[in-house]
Amino acid sequence: MRNILIKIAYDGTGFSGWQRQPNARTVCGTLEETLSVLCGQPVRLDGTSRTDAGVHALGQCASFQLPEGGIPTDRIAAAANNMLAADRLEGVGEIMLLSAEEKPEGFHARYSSRGKRYLYLIWNSPEKSPFRRTQYYQVAEPLDVGAMKRAAAFIKGTHDFKCFEAAGSTVRESTVRTVSQLDIERDGPQVRIAIAGDGFLYHMVRIIAGTLVEVGRHERTEEAVREAIDRLDRGLAGHTAPPQGLYLQEVFYK
Amino acid sequence: MRNILIKIAYDGTGFSGWQRQPNARTVCGTLEETLSVLCGQPVRLDGTSRTDAGVHALGQCASFQLPEGGIPTDRIAAAANNMLAADRLEGVGEIMLLSAEEKPEGFHARYSSRGKRYLYLIWNSPEKSPFRRTQYYQVAEPLDVGAMKRAAAFIKGTHDFKCFEAAGSTVRESTVRTVSQLDIERDGPQVRIAIAGDGFLYHMVRIIAGTLVEVGRHERTEEAVREAIDRLDRGLAGHTAPPQGLYLQEVFYK
Repeated sequence: MRNILIKIAYDGTGFSGWQRQPNARTVCGTLEETLSVLCGQPVRLDGTSRTDAGVHALGQCASFQLPEGGIPTDRIAAAANNMLAADRLEGVGEIMLLSAEEKPEGFHARYSSRGKRYLYLIWNSPEKSPFRRTQYYQVAEPLDVGAMKRAAAFIKGTHDFKCFEAAGSTVRESTVRTVSQLDIERDGPQVRIAIAGDGFLYHMVRIIAGTLVEVGRHERTEEAVREAIDRLDRGLAGHTAPPQGLYLQEVFYK
Repeated sequence: MRNILIKIAYDGTGFSGWQRQPNARTVCGTLEETLSVLCGQPVRLDGTSRTDAGVHALGQCASFQLPEGGIPTDRIAAAANNMLAADRLEGVGEIMLLSAEEKPEGFHARYSSRGKRYLYLIWNSPEKSPFRRTQYYQVAEPLDVGAMKRAAAFIKGTHDFKCFEAAGSTVRESTVRTVSQLDIERDGPQVRIAIAGDGFLYHMVRIIAGTLVEVGRHERTEEAVREAIDRLDRGLAGHTAPPQGLYLQEVFYK
């Protein structure tokens, strides 16, 4: 058997998230259908991250098993992209395979990953636009990026991040994670948050983004962010920023 | 009666064009529903341009009649935007009213207009992206903007533009139009075509854009563009560029 890792970009706007569901259009479901036709046998994908509805990816990963013979691994991405772009605007689909490569037996897109980097994009301008609504969190009030950076310093590092975990998470294991990168930069009206770590709790990136936006609007002090972490209290953290600003950028492997 | 002119921006991706149709989601139909509820009586819009499915607007115009009394004119835009954004991402709808103002009796968004400016956006890079597919014409081969500008010089001015008219146009009147502006500029991977004139034939802007792209790819000479115009022959002009790159930018009034 070949063990194949694919990297994928997608515009999540038209999907009910990554994870396959019986009566919904999902990224995983759409990809599995395409790859099953392409490979001439049922393909079952293990994705690294179960992105929510409306969340995008620049570098989602997924792995699957394929018998020897059949389509060569280095032809999978181009062939799948052709199928995914059929009937789509100018040969570009909502989902695009960036690469496909063979991995050793035992490799698994999710369990073998060492961490991930997300990007959160904010359009910070009083002028809202219909053209940015699916790809940015549009925030009208001017954001104090300096204050956001100072608050971010409290978040970086290894902590129990229970305060940034959404209710509804069923997995009851440790909520300690390490945030190895949390950079915030402004580029004109665009404010970009880059956050990397060994793992993220349910909605953790979006709650961190929402909390930082409140700090940037001076609705919340930097000290309050430290307090939320120390007290492990979701009620002391900020709102959950909307899904359309979130991009899974990269998955790290050894 | 008040005679009201509204300016509108919209992302045309999710609409079957401007013009109302019985069983399709259209920009005009959606706006008429919203304004009818807002104004408490049926509103019938006269739009300046019947944009095609997938075409966008930065400054479409439309006019309608409203009795005195009821909602003040200067409150219409904000109130309509609230309604149009309901259930949408972060309070930004696919359609946005930019302004509403009262005009003299006899003013009509379409018949009073003196011309229009369109923008056509090309993303010129071998790297295609799922995130640009609804807002650009993605062209992989490097475009020679200098050659496009030289070809544009043949198009500018007053000509019989029959060669740039799509089949299917039922109006059989003069096909002479004046193109007063045709500017092409590159900004990194983005190539922008700005075209203004007193009126445009069916698909004229998209056929001009497609023809210029072929000149930019060196598939068609600048002289061939002049010949197409001189011979009034659609078969000698280029392909119709896709709708998603097209934006109605401005309507001109006296």
